[in-house]
Amino acid sequence: MGLAEAIRYSLEAGGKRVRPILCLLAAESLGAPAEAALSGALALEYIHTYSLIHDDLPAMDDDDLRRGKPTCHVAFGEAQAILAGDGLQAEAFAVLASDALVPAERRLHAIALLAEASGWKGMVGGQSMDLEGEALASYGLDHLKTIHRLKTGALLRASLEIGAVLGGATPPQRWALREAGSALGLAFQIQDDILDATSDEATLGKRAGKDAEKGKITYPALLGLDGARQALAEATETALWHLQSLPKPASLEAWARYLATRTA
Amino acid sequence: MGLAEAIRYSLEAGGKRVRPILCLLAAESLGAPAEAALSGALALEYIHTYSLIHDDLPAMDDDDLRRGKPTCHVAFGEAQAILAGDGLQAEAFAVLASDALVPAERRLHAIALLAEASGWKGMVGGQSMDLEGEALASYGLDHLKTIHRLKTGALLRASLEIGAVLGGATPPQRWALREAGSALGLAFQIQDDILDATSDEATLGKRAGKDAEKGKITYPALLGLDGARQALAEATETALWHLQSLPKPASLEAWARYLATRTA
Repeated sequence: MGLAEAIRYSLEAGGKRVRPILCLLAAESLGAPAEAALSGALALEYIHTYSLIHDDLPAMDDDDLRRGKPTCHVAFGEAQAILAGDGLQAEAFAVLASDALVPAERRLHAIALLAEASGWKGMVGGQSMDLEGEALASYGLDHLKTIHRLKTGALLRASLEIGAVLGGATPPQRWALREAGSALGLAFQIQDDILDATSDEATLGKRAGKDAEKGKITYPALLGLDGARQALAEATETALWHLQSLPKPASLEAWARYLATRTA
Repeated sequence: MGLAEAIRYSLEAGGKRVRPILCLLAAESLGAPAEAALSGALALEYIHTYSLIHDDLPAMDDDDLRRGKPTCHVAFGEAQAILAGDGLQAEAFAVLASDALVPAERRLHAIALLAEASGWKGMVGGQSMDLEGEALASYGLDHLKTIHRLKTGALLRASLEIGAVLGGATPPQRWALREAGSALGLAFQIQDDILDATSDEATLGKRAGKDAEKGKITYPALLGLDGARQALAEATETALWHLQSLPKPASLEAWARYLATRTA
């Protein structure tokens, strides 16, 4: 079936798997086995992949290259790409709902977090504001932060919080992971902006310089490149500060540091 | 925000509310209060509405009229329409996950049913096959039935089954409602095909005669108009037969009969 192929194509195109790794390491940071958060990790990658497929569509960001390969609609046509994204979203909730190894209340909590983070009050809402903003003459740092907090931040924060819930966090632990997730989400977006401004297509696996081309406001554009790098370092330190209270934070801390120095 | 407006526009465009009504009446047929299935009813209408928004897109069925009004992408642009559909899908799972009046296990069961019925093995898969089939020279009755069982049948069947689960059905009751849902799904599709072939745009609130125009195979085309009407009556009788074993089936039976005689 063409649809299953299109879904597999996009899921297997690679990528850094940032969200599932953060989810698994969040559970591990509590002393739980990483496997406790496996369905959450899958669900997060399904949601992220569906959002990339839809974002790349001609009516949205109109990108033809993703993770070094033709985007889903280039390979399978627009209709199948829309449906592949729709099917991936449903599958994210299916995999969480049917994870019989996780207590029912935790599964429901994770589903609620994922739906809110990915929906109109989160990721989808941020993407909508971003597209509307392109029509505006300009917008400032506050507006930029709001869009990023929703568009990419909400799902990154949810990655840690879902890992926390599935790993059986106490309320203070869940709070620490949620706050760390907020800071990591900001750091991730600043680094994305820096890479878009300073890297090239071969390294990124997607087009570089898109933001400047579209006249988008970015952290380097608002703060200068040095200012953006300083903001990145501060956000990463904030995340690390929140993680230090957890029982086993070493792997998650290493990942937070890696994200700030990544080159793609 | 443009996105919230686009979502509200499509939700409030009217429509027959077939799926939420079937869900509520399924719970009622067990002697449960209809309110027990309220979050399921909302979730089903959210999923149905998102699927209409995406189906109407230029890359899909390319329709500009729905429920007598301009379709979502005509009113708000393609990008916001794609996102409105995406946001509605997430909200469907959010509303089910957070319904604190329903026991956790029932909520999870309903979420799993909804995700499967609407995903790549259900509604989305059927739509994908249907679009691929338009490229084929022709296909027969078996293929048509498979597409409809997935594209429209899966969600209609799930409407009754989710109502059953939220209403606390015993396994035989759930089975009876599931089987009734299968038969009603078939009846609904046959009637849709008959209306498309025999009605007009003013009555339907959407374009009529689309199937013939696109060279789609339909029940009237395969069985003749009389044959299609007979198949509709048989499917409705099958549904009614399954419902008679339930404690309070009267309202649901009346709805099954109404669906077979509807004019829009």
